[in-house]
Amino acid sequence: FKKSLKMNWPWVWTALCFLYPSVVHGGKVLVIPMDGSHWVNMKVIIEELHSRGHQVSVLRSPDSWYIKETSPFYTAIAVEGESGFDEDFLKKFVSALLKIQKEGKSIWTRLKLEIEQAQKSFEMFEKMSKSLELLLENKDQIQSLKDAKYDLVLTDPGFPVGVILARYFKLPLVFNVRWASHNEGHFLIAPSPLSYIPMVGSELSDKMSFLERVLNVIIFGLAEFNFEYFFKPQFAGVIEKYLGTDTDILSLFQAADIWLMRVDFVFEFPRPTMPNVVYMGGFQCKPAKPLPQHLEEFVQSSGEHGVILMSLGTIIGELPHDLANEIAAAFAKLPQKVIWRHKGDRPAALGNNTLLVDWMPQNDLLGHPKVKLFVAHGGTNGVQEAIYHGVPILGLPLIFDQRDNLLRIDVRGAGKTLDIFTMTADIFYQAIEELLTEPSYRINMQRLSRLHRDQPMKPLDTALFWIEFVMRHKGAAHLRSESYKLPWYSYHSVDVVLFLLTAALLILLIFVWILRSCLRLCFKKKVKSE
Amino acid sequence: FKKSLKMNWPWVWTALCFLYPSVVHGGKVLVIPMDGSHWVNMKVIIEELHSRGHQVSVLRSPDSWYIKETSPFYTAIAVEGESGFDEDFLKKFVSALLKIQKEGKSIWTRLKLEIEQAQKSFEMFEKMSKSLELLLENKDQIQSLKDAKYDLVLTDPGFPVGVILARYFKLPLVFNVRWASHNEGHFLIAPSPLSYIPMVGSELSDKMSFLERVLNVIIFGLAEFNFEYFFKPQFAGVIEKYLGTDTDILSLFQAADIWLMRVDFVFEFPRPTMPNVVYMGGFQCKPAKPLPQHLEEFVQSSGEHGVILMSLGTIIGELPHDLANEIAAAFAKLPQKVIWRHKGDRPAALGNNTLLVDWMPQNDLLGHPKVKLFVAHGGTNGVQEAIYHGVPILGLPLIFDQRDNLLRIDVRGAGKTLDIFTMTADIFYQAIEELLTEPSYRINMQRLSRLHRDQPMKPLDTALFWIEFVMRHKGAAHLRSESYKLPWYSYHSVDVVLFLLTAALLILLIFVWILRSCLRLCFKKKVKSE
Repeated sequence: FKKSLKMNWPWVWTALCFLYPSVVHGGKVLVIPMDGSHWVNMKVIIEELHSRGHQVSVLRSPDSWYIKETSPFYTAIAVEGESGFDEDFLKKFVSALLKIQKEGKSIWTRLKLEIEQAQKSFEMFEKMSKSLELLLENKDQIQSLKDAKYDLVLTDPGFPVGVILARYFKLPLVFNVRWASHNEGHFLIAPSPLSYIPMVGSELSDKMSFLERVLNVIIFGLAEFNFEYFFKPQFAGVIEKYLGTDTDILSLFQAADIWLMRVDFVFEFPRPTMPNVVYMGGFQCKPAKPLPQHLEEFVQSSGEHGVILMSLGTIIGELPHDLANEIAAAFAKLPQKVIWRHKGDRPAALGNNTLLVDWMPQNDLLGHPKVKLFVAHGGTNGVQEAIYHGVPILGLPLIFDQRDNLLRIDVRGAGKTLDIFTMTADIFYQAIEELLTEPSYRINMQRLSRLHRDQPMKPLDTALFWIEFVMRHKGAAHLRSESYKLPWYSYHSVDVVLFLLTAALLILLIFVWILRSCLRLCFKKKVKSE
Repeated sequence: FKKSLKMNWPWVWTALCFLYPSVVHGGKVLVIPMDGSHWVNMKVIIEELHSRGHQVSVLRSPDSWYIKETSPFYTAIAVEGESGFDEDFLKKFVSALLKIQKEGKSIWTRLKLEIEQAQKSFEMFEKMSKSLELLLENKDQIQSLKDAKYDLVLTDPGFPVGVILARYFKLPLVFNVRWASHNEGHFLIAPSPLSYIPMVGSELSDKMSFLERVLNVIIFGLAEFNFEYFFKPQFAGVIEKYLGTDTDILSLFQAADIWLMRVDFVFEFPRPTMPNVVYMGGFQCKPAKPLPQHLEEFVQSSGEHGVILMSLGTIIGELPHDLANEIAAAFAKLPQKVIWRHKGDRPAALGNNTLLVDWMPQNDLLGHPKVKLFVAHGGTNGVQEAIYHGVPILGLPLIFDQRDNLLRIDVRGAGKTLDIFTMTADIFYQAIEELLTEPSYRINMQRLSRLHRDQPMKPLDTALFWIEFVMRHKGAAHLRSESYKLPWYSYHSVDVVLFLLTAALLILLIFVWILRSCLRLCFKKKVKSE
């Protein structure tokens, strides 16, 4: 028997090899999350990891807003120091922005506010860096994290704490990513020609005029400047102290094994990518569940006209009174019913057709066949859900990437964006009318929905496959380029081109010199013979 | 009932939306193949298309070698003119090359041979272009092809005939590709920094020294020159006549909807890619089937020593006598059994342990647990099969991409390459010994095999998914970049950078001018006051 086993081991290996991908051992994942709406995303993945039998630990600052201390899905590990994430400030910032615009204050007031926000980000990174050092100095906690023998670190690289810790613990690294430090994630690892890849905040599409391309390059320059002189120095000290001098923050980002990108190419413009970038846009979307009875009744009462949803996300606090009134007045004129996620006092102009709610089951409502339109601020989550369910969007963007997200819907003819700062009841009403009566918006959005759903695998399953892949193979080195280690002039072959040009010039000079020498010799002979 | 249907249609739509991706209507595919080993690949996809209920038509020249006139899997459409593909010439070329190297003729003889080969390629493209014009002039045939209402064109863009016809018929276009016209496929659509992406024929890896990078740039330059001055003009006439003046051959390549690449990143070095590139490397590999009885008996007779396979592919005719003898002598000294796919006379030094065969079930043998080593020329098909089954390779490359393919195995420590032109029995024997006794080769190859097999979906299923995707959505425009339409100086932002530099210079000049004027004014006043 022993001999037959020995002779048969390759068969056993072959059989194992086939089973291998489907065997999921219970892995251990260390999650270093971002707070706010980013945590909403991360939680979806954590819950799926849990349901597949993996153990998840989450690093949690004491001042965390969204991340609960106890959860059936993960173990929270309390760390000292502040997270740096200040939701309250963001809410105040948006309110101030809305007020300034409405009251028409000068561009200097606006600039002051922007500088205040930049200072706040700066402080945020400072706090983060300090908390990280507190953790690294806490020998007991570090030892217990080491002893836990995690299989990988899963992090959102909007903040670089996870990136630094993964290297410190020498663990494989998986990103749940759209933004990394100072730019859209792709810019850190994939060639990104600025001629057709718009920067975030540029409000440009992938087709630009010459001046738009100039603007795009300038915005890129500012982002790089910001990275080099504000972001990088914040973490340079920690990195040098704990990881040594032969690395920097950019290299740490570029060393991640898998980048799970929260976009797909139904939403994002086509662009160069890398083998270790996995697209999971819309991974949080699910088929709609039945609505609570009172909502279902309200929705059904809309008859043939259907329902409009409105939500401006979590960051916005209260809308200024007059703005809320303009919106309410426009809604009141419509034959449709409206469900409006609204904070603050009831607007005076509110019609009978409008239901104000504190919270709504957004995904289930968007999946309801009576819902005809989504009035939204343009956060990625909401936009992806609207694509998934095929509901056109009327966009009222506020800050961050919201304008850019909505632009991607607009250029596909699946929605329309208004400027919330200059909007009146009339403009708002006409935009809704157009979106409801012109069928192309719905047709285009439903086409996007069909394309988005037509994938070999569901986005969440794809994400989990690659996380488990990294567990199985202890990384994904074969998918990761090491070209980033080249200095920029070598990466872009500048040195080679200069060398070849010099060589060509030299050859030319030698040729000319020989020619001249020959001519001179001939001339001399001629003179002599004469 | 009518009303309830009306009210429920969005549900019906939602249900259809979910079913949509799994519904495969019987599509109609027009295949424009390449002959030779490329046809072996295409046939795998055609058979799978057939088994999924699609109708396949294949354009076939009367002088075709591999493509049969009748098949249960496809309908052959006879076209006039020559295919241009001359397998006989290739065989003669390889034999001549082997002879020259063995007999040590001068570098000029070698160069003459290379020029002869280049002339032959030139003739090949000329014939192809003429056959294409014959087809386009044949009104009846063109009309019947139009009437067939194909869903898409599937072609191997090594030859550009399919690319031109797809545009002429205005059909979606899918590539089964590794080489496109003059370069590796990626070079036509993805950013390809020459600092870490080796050109085919360079025998370089993704880590290069400065001089190697210089060589790589020079080879790229030659390939571009070849494209611009030899390849492009061949088809410029046909394109202008039948497609108009606002396109060229490169744009036609770049307009393909999906590029099914015959590599994956277990084999290929990591590099930038594009959203419409789908990797299906190893799609032709299958689990091994049981061997015919006589072969199984021969294999089992090897005992614990195991079996070595040798095959140098289809292109090589006969090996020179002395070379075949060296190989046979080395094999004779081994305790292993050898199965050698051999053409020509029986070598005198052949041992009892070596079985000469005309043809062998290569995939089934490679999947046999007794097979320890594969002596191969390094064609992509064979290398992928070896990776799939985890068998180390001893490479004896001859022409084309074979050296480059084998290099990818060597740098991963999963094989070793010898120079067939200078090889002796001793060198050959020692290399085999090393590959059999040093376990790292097998361990590394089996690691590659595990990585290759650990994919969300089998490569052939992935390929079919995307072909059917193109049928369902009549293309894949949302995955295709249109950036190629930009002129090169815009694509690389050269115009923008020059503009910004000029602007900066102007501002500097104005500043200097103002400063000088001020100083002068002050100086004048001073002079006056003095």
